Formats: sequence, C-alpha cells, structure tokens
Amino acid sequence: MSGSSTTVAEHSPCFLLTDFGDRDAYVGVMKAVMLSAAPSLPIVDLCHAIEPQNVLSAGYVLLTAVPYLPDGSIVVAVVDPGVGTRRRIVGIVFEGWTLLVPDNGLVSLVLERYQCRSAWEIAWERLRSSPPCATFHGRDIFAPCAALLATKKRTLAHVGNPIDPASLVRLDTRPEARPQGIVASILHVDRFGNLITNVEAAPWGIVPGADWVCRVGQDVLPLVSTFGNVEPGESLAYIGSSGFIEIAVCNSSAAARYGTRPPVFIHHAP
Amino acid sequence: MSGSSTTVAEHSPCFLLTDFGDRDAYVGVMKAVMLSAAPSLPIVDLCHAIEPQNVLSAGYVLLTAVPYLPDGSIVVAVVDPGVGTRRRIVGIVFEGWTLLVPDNGLVSLVLERYQCRSAWEIAWERLRSSPPCATFHGRDIFAPCAALLATKKRTLAHVGNPIDPASLVRLDTRPEARPQGIVASILHVDRFGNLITNVEAAPWGIVPGADWVCRVGQDVLPLVSTFGNVEPGESLAYIGSSGFIEIAVCNSSAAARYGTRPPVFIHHAP
Amino acid sequence: MSGSSTTVAEHSPCFLLTDFGDRDAYVGVMKAVMLSAAPSLPIVDLCHAIEPQNVLSAGYVLLTAVPYLPDGSIVVAVVDPGVGTRRRIVGIVFEGWTLLVPDNGLVSLVLERYQCRSAWEIAWERLRSSPPCATFHGRDIFAPCAALLATKKRTLAHVGNPIDPASLVRLDTRPEARPQGIVASILHVDRFGNLITNVEAAPWGIVPGADWVCRVGQDVLPLVSTFGNVEPGESLAYIGSSGFIEIAVCNSSAAARYGTRPPVFIHHAP
Repeated sequence: MSGSSTTVAEHSPCFLLTDFGDRDAYVGVMKAVMLSAAPSLPIVDLCHAIEPQNVLSAGYVLLTAVPYLPDGSIVVAVVDPGVGTRRRIVGIVFEGWTLLVPDNGLVSLVLERYQCRSAWEIAWERLRSSPPCATFHGRDIFAPCAALLATKKRTLAHVGNPIDPASLVRLDTRPEARPQGIVASILHVDRFGNLITNVEAAPWGIVPGADWVCRVGQDVLPLVSTFGNVEPGESLAYIGSSGFIEIAVCNSSAAARYGTRPPVFIHHAP
Repeated sequence: MSGSSTTVAEHSPCFLLTDFGDRDAYVGVMKAVMLSAAPSLPIVDLCHAIEPQNVLSAGYVLLTAVPYLPDGSIVVAVVDPGVGTRRRIVGIVFEGWTLLVPDNGLVSLVLERYQCRSAWEIAWERLRSSPPCATFHGRDIFAPCAALLATKKRTLAHVGNPIDPASLVRLDTRPEARPQGIVASILHVDRFGNLITNVEAAPWGIVPGADWVCRVGQDVLPLVSTFGNVEPGESLAYIGSSGFIEIAVCNSSAAARYGTRPPVFIHHAP
Repeated sequence: MSGSSTTVAEHSPCFLLTDFGDRDAYVGVMKAVMLSAAPSLPIVDLCHAIEPQNVLSAGYVLLTAVPYLPDGSIVVAVVDPGVGTRRRIVGIVFEGWTLLVPDNGLVSLVLERYQCRSAWEIAWERLRSSPPCATFHGRDIFAPCAALLATKKRTLAHVGNPIDPASLVRLDTRPEARPQGIVASILHVDRFGNLITNVEAAPWGIVPGADWVCRVGQDVLPLVSTFGNVEPGESLAYIGSSGFIEIAVCNSSAAARYGTRPPVFIHHAP
C-alpha cells in the first residue's frame, strides 16, 4: 500500500536563467507551464536580468552556478537572439546535471571547464502538436521539455535526437596571451559594478600578491586577496568566487569608474 | 490510516502580480503571511515590476498569463492606486482560475476575452478582527484571503458577498477604427523595449505579410512573422505571443527609438 | 512502516534578504547550496535589491517583515561590507524566528523593538573543511548553515559559540529630539519613492490629524491617515504600514521631489 503519492524530492529541481527581465510575466508563464505539467516541481531562479541577448554574460553566470547545483538538476538557459530562426535547441548532459539551451554558444565557457557526456537536438514535434510561437520558445518548448525531464516522464532520447557534441556552437572566450602579459576582456558586470574578466587565475598561475598587477585604462591595480586589503574608494583586482580575475572599487563601482568594457592587461609586476 | 497529511498538490498554486517592485519586502511579507496560514502553499511570481499604478499594463501582463495557469490557480493582482479608499476588493471566478483584485479596471482586458462566472466583494471583517492597514491591503486582505481560498478552507461565498459582474469597473482598452485603418495605443512596454499595442490581430483579420503596414511616428514598419525577417537595427511590427500587434527593433529597443507612447497607425499597405 | 519520508512542513521556511541584486546568480547559487542539503526546503525571497552595503536600509526592510514571519522561520540577511574581514557572523534567536547575519549593525532596528533570546558566533570550521571564499560567505557559510538549522539537523549550539548579546554591533538609529520637534533621517526609500523616516509614531505619541506637521526642505506637509486625504501631486506624511512616519507624494515619488535624504523635521502644528 505504498500508493502513488508523489513527493517533491522525486522531481529534479529546475533552475531558470534568462534575459527576460522582470517587467513582464515571461518567467512566470514559463513556471505556470511547468507547474501545469508537474504541480510540485521545484523551480529556482538563477538569474533573469542577463543583458538582453548577451549569451557570453549568461554563460558566465551559468558557470558560477554549476558547482553548486543539486545532483540531477535541470538548467533551462534562454538567452536567445535567434529565436524563431533555425538555430537548434539542445539538451546537453553533464556529470550531475542537464542543460536545455539554444545552440548559440551560451554554453561555451561551461564546455571549457566541464566534460559534456552527450548532446541532443530537441524536436518540438515530440512536445506539442501545434508549432511553437515564433517569439517565445521559452514558454512553448523549453518549459514543457524541462517539466518532462524533471519529472522523469521522458528522457532526452524521447524528446530529441542525438547530435555530435563537437557540433555545438562555441564562442571564443579565451584571453590573448602576449609576451608581456595577458589581454583580458570583460565577461560580465555584476550587481556591485565589479568587472569579471575572462582570465581564470589557476590555469595562468596567477596568485594574489606583489608579483602581479592589473592595468585598467591608465590605472595600475594591485592583485590582492580581499577587499579588506585596500581602502574604501581604491581600485583592486582579485580572484573572484568563481576563479576569474575581477576588477572592483572598494565600497564603490568599477563599472562607474572604468565603464563596462575597459581595456584590461594583466602582467607581472615590474 | 490515510491520516491527515497535506501534500503540496492539494493546494492551489497562487500567482502574484503587483507593482510593488523589488526594493522592499512587500512581496516577501505577502508570502510570509500566506505561508504562515499554509506552510506548503505553492506561490509563484508573475510580475512585480508593473509601472506603479498602471492598471492597464498590469491587465495586459495578466492576460498573457491566463492561458497557461494551472487548473485551479488563484491569481492575486495588486496594482491599487485607490488603496485606503472605498474601492472594492473583488474575487472573480473564471473557468479554471480565480482572480483577487482591486475593482479598478485591471481586469478589463481579461473580461474582453474570457467569460466571468461570478464575482464577489471581499469583506475584510470575515478575514480579520482589526481593520487592515490603510496602505497595505496586499498584506492584510489579499494574502490571507488567497491562502484561505488556495487551501480550500474557505470559498468566496465565505469571505465575500456576491456582486453583479456587470458592476465591475471596466476601462476602455479598444483601439479606434477609422476608414483608413486602426489608431492604436500602447498597453505595455516589455523588457526588451518592445511596444505592445492594444490591437489584437485575429479580430481585425490582420495577418503577417505585405498586405499590412504599421506607421509609428514617421516610420512605416513591415508586419512580419518573426525577427528573422528583418536585419538587426531595423524596425518591425509582428503578432506577439499573446496575439497583439507589437512594435520592435531587431536586436535593440523600440522604446528607445520611439518612446514609450508613440502614435501608432495600422493600415493596409498602399 | 511509516518510513522516513520528509514533508515540506517539517522544514522551517528560510527567508533571504541581501544586497546581491538580480544581475547575477548569487542568490540562485545560495538557493542551490541550500537545496543540495535539503531538497524540499521552502526558500522565500524577502528582498535582494537593498542599496549595496546599506545595512540600515536592510535593517528597516527586515523590521517590516518580522511580525509576519511564520513560526520557526530562519532569516538569512547578507548585507556585508566587511565580507572577508574579521567581522563576526552571528546567529540571533528571537521569539519565533532566528536570524543569521553579519555582526555589522544590520540588526540594530530589530533589537530596539524585539527581545533577543540568545546570540551565537558561527564557526565556519563546523560547517566545512576548507576555508570559505573571501568574497562570498553567503554561499559558503550562510547558506549551508541555514539549511542545517532549517532541517533541524543542527542547532546554533552545534555550529557556533555563545556570545553576549550586548556585544552585538549596534548603530544609532534614533531621531534627535529637540524642544521644537524631532529631527528625522531617512532609513529607506521604497519602490514608489516614498521616504521612510526613522521616527516611529507610537513612542513619540504622533497621531494623524491637524496637531502635527512634517517639514521637508521648504515644504510643510500635513500628517494624514491615507493617500485619499490629499489630491494627486500633493505631498503628505503618514504613518506607514510598519509604524514609522513616511513622506510621499500622492500618485508620484517623494524621492524625485525631495531627493533621497532631505532634511526632515516633525513638529506640532503652530
């Protein structure tokens, strides 16, 4: 008599990452669709304020979350300048979690750090009988697909066709190595105006201390361990919580001081 | 021995739509009140960034969500310029869902498309012994009322008195038909700067293609199927995901180009 | 054979209050950490748009929520200019709820109104084996600690050491009493541009009506019961939903008219 009751924990948690913002019910409607299919599905917002159509920023934000996802999570990432065109929608299986995403390079940064186990092109015909709205695949394809996967009613093999992971669109996100140092670019601007660069500290052997400096515009910033090492109002570089070099102004905004895309050069101290 | 355990699915999901924004705990406090009454109540945000006191924009956002609500949903919509005055708080029963809302016209667009089954004026005296705070009925009336309805501890007949649906405040939201075409106005500006007009395509017989154009300020925009039909930076009109004509700039913002309330005229191509 | 199934209601709800904003996955990652430890943990957002590092505004927002928290709630409040320095992280037990917070004065306003039952300094070594990231204690200390407390797997005595509540950092939040009246300051600016002062009506014996006025810059505002007492566009002072004197402009923004930190003087009518 164990019955057929469904407990919350039987469903995989679904994490949502979009550039849909907060001015509309776009995200709420995706959740409504998911809850219609699975009333007790746990749905968690990762971020919805990605700069519109900035797939690289979305990729960075996703990367910051990957190590902390509960086992079995489904992540739905919809930053989709190509919605309505023939770009693919893909399901990508990683160790411990699965990503549903437009095949537009959003996953590039994640693929540099994590091994993909398999990839699938979603076939909307297996999810619905009528064609999806040309401008809202989040609602008509991503949401119902995520609910089916999270409730284990379907697998990616049911809703998609296998594709070669090497065929996934990948954007070049690497910094440029020069003899004198590393030319960095900005992946993401966070809430505090911190500028997150595309330079990961570990593979470049960068550690906080007097050996390294970071040139931003005309300023030369120390590479320190924490905000406590500088005075309020001073600029600093440090290794952020996801392993990338970040540029900040203590108790203020680096984006306000330097703009959101300043030239950045990281090199050994002279 | 089936006991008295309560599962999540026994509760109706509650969707919240307000102009409370994100700078305060107003929404969090509403949820705290609801969870105090029903700890496992599913609560979903539809939108909280409605322009302050813009009941028409809220009505549009609600309309976009209606078709996707799980069966039995309760929607709490609090955009309430008249809070503290004698305006009514009403419960309106539609097929498959129930709305709690100030009687200020917010529901006008929904009433044009969906049949109302019954309407009730909420009597706060049946929800609480002390008068509600004059400036926060969301917390003191809407939230406890929604929790009672969602948990099925009370019905609208318990917490309100029946009213004539014809007595509900309705705002005129229709576009103006002229011999040469349709004079549209803007219901809502979305996250991407798209301008949603009050012209529904279907009842006016509007279909994408060369037969129709949309004049916005000095520009004449094609009415196309999808963003893929124009180049980045070009303006376009298209039928949005809720059936209304929308004005957009491909990969950019129509609100930035035309303002949020430009004159719009939709007519047959010359 | 009732088994070991866990129902949602066995967990304490966790409320989150931060200045992390919405541009990143910081909040989503905290939730991911919490759900990894406790898949059915109810997590509710109180507010994440606190002005960066404004602990007093955060304290006010927290105060507005306290009376409405479900019994047994855990509140995690992370506005933390001192992250990475030696400031303490503390657990503070109040009647009916528990607060996890940096010891930086955020709790000052709450301590003026509510009795603290006990206080504990959290020891991260009891939560994790490796040191926390110097810039993201929300993820590495607060989130796992909250999950342990909410699931009752640990108590504050397990994860911390008792401290004297009198040692908690307290900021001076009181208005200045002068013979002619009360010199107020602004605690918080809400979504509608209302200015919330640090003057509580009840202890000062302030009631709406002709006896009191509120001087803001050059203007003298009536102290009224509700927005309905003035015309659209008129300035007013009133007792807000949390008992403090607030300054507003009917159907508009007081912050736009007066700035966010105008001089405010509340006194008896001449």
